[in-house]
Amino acid sequence: MLTLYFAPGTCALASLIALEDSGLAFKAQKLNLAESEQQKPAYLAINPKGRVPALVTDRGVLTETPAILAYIAQTAPATKLAPIDDPFAFARVQAFNNYLCSTVHVNHAHGRRASRWADDPAAQAAMKAKVATTMAESFALIEATMLAGPWVEGEAYTVADPYLFIMEDWLDGDGVDIARFPKSAAHYAAMQDRPAVQRALARARA
Amino acid sequence: MLTLYFAPGTCALASLIALEDSGLAFKAQKLNLAESEQQKPAYLAINPKGRVPALVTDRGVLTETPAILAYIAQTAPATKLAPIDDPFAFARVQAFNNYLCSTVHVNHAHGRRASRWADDPAAQAAMKAKVATTMAESFALIEATMLAGPWVEGEAYTVADPYLFIMEDWLDGDGVDIARFPKSAAHYAAMQDRPAVQRALARARA
Ligand SMILES: N[C@@H](CCC(=O)N[C@@H](CS)C(=O)NCC(=O)O)C(=O)O
Ligand SMILES: N[C@@H](CCC(=O)N[C@@H](CS)C(=O)NCC(=O)O)C(=O)O
Repeated sequence: MLTLYFAPGTCALASLIALEDSGLAFKAQKLNLAESEQQKPAYLAINPKGRVPALVTDRGVLTETPAILAYIAQTAPATKLAPIDDPFAFARVQAFNNYLCSTVHVNHAHGRRASRWADDPAAQAAMKAKVATTMAESFALIEATMLAGPWVEGEAYTVADPYLFIMEDWLDGDGVDIARFPKSAAHYAAMQDRPAVQRALARARA
Repeated sequence: MLTLYFAPGTCALASLIALEDSGLAFKAQKLNLAESEQQKPAYLAINPKGRVPALVTDRGVLTETPAILAYIAQTAPATKLAPIDDPFAFARVQAFNNYLCSTVHVNHAHGRRASRWADDPAAQAAMKAKVATTMAESFALIEATMLAGPWVEGEAYTVADPYLFIMEDWLDGDGVDIARFPKSAAHYAAMQDRPAVQRALARARA
């Protein structure tokens, strides 16, 4: 049995959507970040990083969104959530997900979590002030060079799609109008039409 | 034929070491970051992100260190650079590499590349001032929960090892004494004894 620890509004929703897509049996455990549940001993025993997502499996715990997404795709091969039999095509999906993880998510985090990287409140405000710029730059690059359309990899829906969806979902709060990026806007809308996405969002609201 | 674009002192050396480990035929192309070669049109045509590493393959270009490392491991299966036939074990390696990519590398980048996230020079100085703290926190977590020893995954050397080696190599410049982390210090020393690492470092100096 798989158990996903997640929180509403976070990158962990990408893994929640992928689990819904996969048809695998799983439980979803919601953490309350406003009450810092991710920092409490019970959760640190599961994920010492104090972050979501964490996926508990029969063999141990997995963290880091791109690793969890690839694991879901490999564990549910029939649903073809990644081109797992083609190392080059698989690496392209991984490269996309790694860009979201190491660059786009990090840009976003400078809005609410600037204290990770500087203690001075004025510095934190300066970081927050640049989030709209860096998020827009990342989406300009995604739009021009990465998002084939309608899905990230073209006609085949993959685990890159729920991850991109979460980044798209953050844009408005980050001060970026998604309408500036027509392919991303269409992708965001298409994702919202998917039953798996609707089920995941309903779990997050519950 | 594979061509790796890299620069001395960067995360791209992890991919260079892994290529040396793999026995695959490859060319290494050194970029001069001091002259901003990574921003010139010739290189942007290869990697529009303007970063290293980039791995040019017969099928197209791959970017992002964890994706390149996994691709090298999958393309040279005989060298067993990752547990590619075991999705859970493979995901553990990927999770480790994703942590380096999204957290440890990002902590380090706040020293020299703070301008990515804030325009105010005082804010950039405040970010630089916290690098030693965040790098030490990350290595404390690696030491306590991730580095099995002697290699990251225990007895089996994987592509996680050259990547960790590069992060270890950054510690001194980031104001952190690696001796505070005995397992990491031993790992750093063991890596330097490997001929593949010596060949990669010689290419970087050449
Ligand atoms: N690199 C990790 C990042 C995980 C992460 O930072 N998650 C955020 C939510 S989007 C979190 O748990 N934040 C809580 C905190 O910082 O205390 C991944 O991609 O899974
Ligand atoms: N997420 C990327 C990051 C690549 C990256 O930022 N590389 C740095 C060197 S360590 C770079 O090219 N910097 C040049 C610049 O920022 O202009 C990866 O892991 O490959």
